[in-house]
Amino acid sequence: MAYQMTVLYNHPEDPEAFDAHYDNVHAPLAAKLPGLRGYTVIRPVARGDEKPPYHLIATLTFDDEASAQAALASEEGKKAVADLANFAQAGATTLVGTVTTVV
Amino acid sequence: MAYQMTVLYNHPEDPEAFDAHYDNVHAPLAAKLPGLRGYTVIRPVARGDEKPPYHLIATLTFDDEASAQAALASEEGKKAVADLANFAQAGATTLVGTVTTVV
Repeated sequence: MAYQMTVLYNHPEDPEAFDAHYDNVHAPLAAKLPGLRGYTVIRPVARGDEKPPYHLIATLTFDDEASAQAALASEEGKKAVADLANFAQAGATTLVGTVTTVV
Repeated sequence: MAYQMTVLYNHPEDPEAFDAHYDNVHAPLAAKLPGLRGYTVIRPVARGDEKPPYHLIATLTFDDEASAQAALASEEGKKAVADLANFAQAGATTLVGTVTTVV
């Protein structure tokens, strides 16, 4: 069992500035979260004519809910959350839950 | 590098029927997709008073885009896609993209 935090970022006004900040500042900050077991990112691409509804999806994996909460409450967590104001003005949705591994 | 398909399921009218169908029928069908390297599910839980915007998030990982497309075009893929009509009447959003592994 593991616990996952999925962050769905809305399309930013300036995608290039968002991407540069995400890769160079935010991801390195989030990567320092204590207890972080995995961290992947996709930037959804269009399927046919349909523009994807989100610009970026980040998936962060922890051992359990307590570890995830401790990570957010840590100094590193506070810095990563505070950094959202620097690039995620368009908003983001965070979903959390226990992971079921099917395959 | 890998390629991911993230499926965000809207809240169903009957969550219990959805969950039973997903676990007993849909997940076993999707697990048979050729070339599937990983498949995880979370059922997002509320954070504070906020109801999560989706009922279930499925993340399917393939080697690359060609493998994902071949999987969907296969007999197993057609069966899994056709099965959506049996439980996902509330709708679902599928996002695809290349995976960047940060941690």
